[in-house]
Amino acid sequence: MTTEQDYFAGNASTLITGAYTGEQAQVQDIYIGRDGKICATGTDISRDYRTEADRIIDAHGKIALPGLVNTHTHAAMTLLRGYADDMHLQEWLSEKIWPLEAHLTGDDVYWGTRLACLEMIRSGTIAFNDMYFFMDDAARATADAGMKGTFAHGFIDLGDEEKREAEIRATKELYASIAAMNNPALQTAVGPHAPYTVSPEGLAWCAEFSREKNIGLHIHLAETEREVNDCIALHGMRPAALLDRCGCLTGRTVAAHCCWLNEDECRLLADREVTVSHNPVSNMKLAVGRTMPYHWLKAAGARVSLGTDGCSSNNNLDLIEEMKVAALLQKYSWNSSVLLPADEALTLATSAGARALRTGGGTLAPGEEADLILLTTRTPPMVPLHNCRSNIVYAASGCAVDTVFCSGRMLMHDRVIPGEAEILSMAQQCATGLVARASGRT
Amino acid sequence: MTTEQDYFAGNASTLITGAYTGEQAQVQDIYIGRDGKICATGTDISRDYRTEADRIIDAHGKIALPGLVNTHTHAAMTLLRGYADDMHLQEWLSEKIWPLEAHLTGDDVYWGTRLACLEMIRSGTIAFNDMYFFMDDAARATADAGMKGTFAHGFIDLGDEEKREAEIRATKELYASIAAMNNPALQTAVGPHAPYTVSPEGLAWCAEFSREKNIGLHIHLAETEREVNDCIALHGMRPAALLDRCGCLTGRTVAAHCCWLNEDECRLLADREVTVSHNPVSNMKLAVGRTMPYHWLKAAGARVSLGTDGCSSNNNLDLIEEMKVAALLQKYSWNSSVLLPADEALTLATSAGARALRTGGGTLAPGEEADLILLTTRTPPMVPLHNCRSNIVYAASGCAVDTVFCSGRMLMHDRVIPGEAEILSMAQQCATGLVARASGRT
Repeated sequence: MTTEQDYFAGNASTLITGAYTGEQAQVQDIYIGRDGKICATGTDISRDYRTEADRIIDAHGKIALPGLVNTHTHAAMTLLRGYADDMHLQEWLSEKIWPLEAHLTGDDVYWGTRLACLEMIRSGTIAFNDMYFFMDDAARATADAGMKGTFAHGFIDLGDEEKREAEIRATKELYASIAAMNNPALQTAVGPHAPYTVSPEGLAWCAEFSREKNIGLHIHLAETEREVNDCIALHGMRPAALLDRCGCLTGRTVAAHCCWLNEDECRLLADREVTVSHNPVSNMKLAVGRTMPYHWLKAAGARVSLGTDGCSSNNNLDLIEEMKVAALLQKYSWNSSVLLPADEALTLATSAGARALRTGGGTLAPGEEADLILLTTRTPPMVPLHNCRSNIVYAASGCAVDTVFCSGRMLMHDRVIPGEAEILSMAQQCATGLVARASGRT
Repeated sequence: MTTEQDYFAGNASTLITGAYTGEQAQVQDIYIGRDGKICATGTDISRDYRTEADRIIDAHGKIALPGLVNTHTHAAMTLLRGYADDMHLQEWLSEKIWPLEAHLTGDDVYWGTRLACLEMIRSGTIAFNDMYFFMDDAARATADAGMKGTFAHGFIDLGDEEKREAEIRATKELYASIAAMNNPALQTAVGPHAPYTVSPEGLAWCAEFSREKNIGLHIHLAETEREVNDCIALHGMRPAALLDRCGCLTGRTVAAHCCWLNEDECRLLADREVTVSHNPVSNMKLAVGRTMPYHWLKAAGARVSLGTDGCSSNNNLDLIEEMKVAALLQKYSWNSSVLLPADEALTLATSAGARALRTGGGTLAPGEEADLILLTTRTPPMVPLHNCRSNIVYAASGCAVDTVFCSGRMLMHDRVIPGEAEILSMAQQCATGLVARASGRT
């Protein structure tokens, strides 16, 4: 018998036997080496690796998928989950969200991010693209959870030079701080918040820093019609063109939302190899009025991935739910019951996200990082098994995820994550304390 | 120690201690008597009933809610889950769904409905409004699962008198068959499929049978724009007016979808005390092009409830997910982030549904039937607990449901349902056999 500690140890090799890996009932074994990479897959490899494996997981009746990748979130906003909903946007921000955020501490962000990681692991996500404050604390939390994260300090200068200098310092400090952690699972991105909150000078600095350090650039783009109209009024061009002029559109860029892109902008993003992060739940909840034009982006050959946004506007981090809502919203909004089928929704949440964050190939091919999840089929939404992928996208929720590996390290097994109770308790304490401070009760 | 059999026995009284019952951390005990009704609730009743209770359930850290009610589904279509998605409507129906349905047997419907009941119980639903074929088998399955069901034979005459007579016989037979089961949890409804598939004579007969027997009338209404336009062309009036002329709009009527109602029709349905069943997931997946106008229905004082539709067009039966999608879709479609807040979504799925199906009050008040569910709060989507109801609607999924009572009988406890494995296995076998028969492989 191994102890729980041993069982979840890193650097162990794992033989997974008998998992469904295809659309139908195609069953394979998967061997994960001690280097955290998928070493071999096949129908008859079990014999070869049974002796060598440090642990063997019987996955008969389970589905193996690449781990999911969330390309736009504000992880620590888990602490604000359910604090304010069903409000007008401005009132919601100015009366509820911002006053609470003004009282956030690094410790809050650490435990809020631990809670987010717990939730993401439980629903099959192994990597995420984060933008918020106290991002070194967020990175520490992610390392402690065993996940992969890309962390951007939300850079907002509102055209003010002094603010801009402070944001540049904060971005450089975060870069140095994460580099010093010396953990390949943690990356920095530069995070110009949006074309309407960052000056062209600020955007240009961000673009140059991203190029110089070869790191991601994470930005909100064309979420509302108003910001598009304001951009045209102020700069004489639409926001994608402004970003392009400032050098912000490259293969390192992830642009979240993109609801109000026109067809030309879709082609521009495709040409520049930008990855769009589609956030359908958030867009619906905040009633932004238009859906990311997947059909134009697809026709242009653009890269599209999936994100949950933060827990104030979703209110969860379940990418399996997000795949379903994406597939539904595209059909509904663009009036086509064939748009964004289940297979493509899965691609958005796996390989497209992995490519955007440069965390691996997002497939189960030998040589890839072992970012891999197992889902149970012994639950009503997975029965009957006419089509694995349809069941995952349209019928299941994150609860179907049973076991999670990130770079070969087992983060969850049989829905058990070591230390879960403490994280829930600490996050609840932080949230309670935050509300108390914001309301002047402490 | 009681055995599992005893533990799940009916006619046992239950004391539930320490459950959250309000928006914040209001904790109460609930005592369910042997008559299946809620006998008492309060903060200090535990002492009074501790000795008398046949079983005591510690619900500290759990939320108690009225059981959820699904007002529109085709339960046995679980067997078709994932069989065909992402297709154009006509092709999907004529090439996939209808050919398969032509091979359905009563045994298929029994096990498909058992699977549906399993899935509904696991996601907190205790009663549902069903329309399909072999409905006496569906009713038996529901009785065996311990749930409440209302069963309508899908009545389609396409203007053909001979077909109409056959449908009338089938409806009368179902009524007699369910009456003979002598189980108050099972009701018959008359089920005219839709204004475009049933002649005015057929509709009038259905209305009269509903009145005579004092049973529900379950119909699809205004799901697509085309059927509204066709109705105007054929009958010179919109479908709600046609139904009203045939006597089909009463307080016993549940009208599913209602996407294309105009404002006058909303007022008509309100005046006639019809309950609308909102089915947002299905409407999005099939790209019907418009969302049920909740704001007009609400302004008119109409009754609105929630349904999942069948598993071919959803593809699950999770009303907790449906509440979220309803709250999101209303906001998105009608361009208002304050429309259909969490509290109202919960009302749609509980008391509004219970009133529509006449299964009780759908509240936790003493004297009501003990249709009650417990949800865990010790899972990431429920933390922090700023607002129970927001977390349930926007963050949780059906997996948060932990324990389910229907008329005081415990159907699930700690996510265990006796006999689950056999149901999953039999449903899978039926689905596999059905596809084999339809493809001529047997």
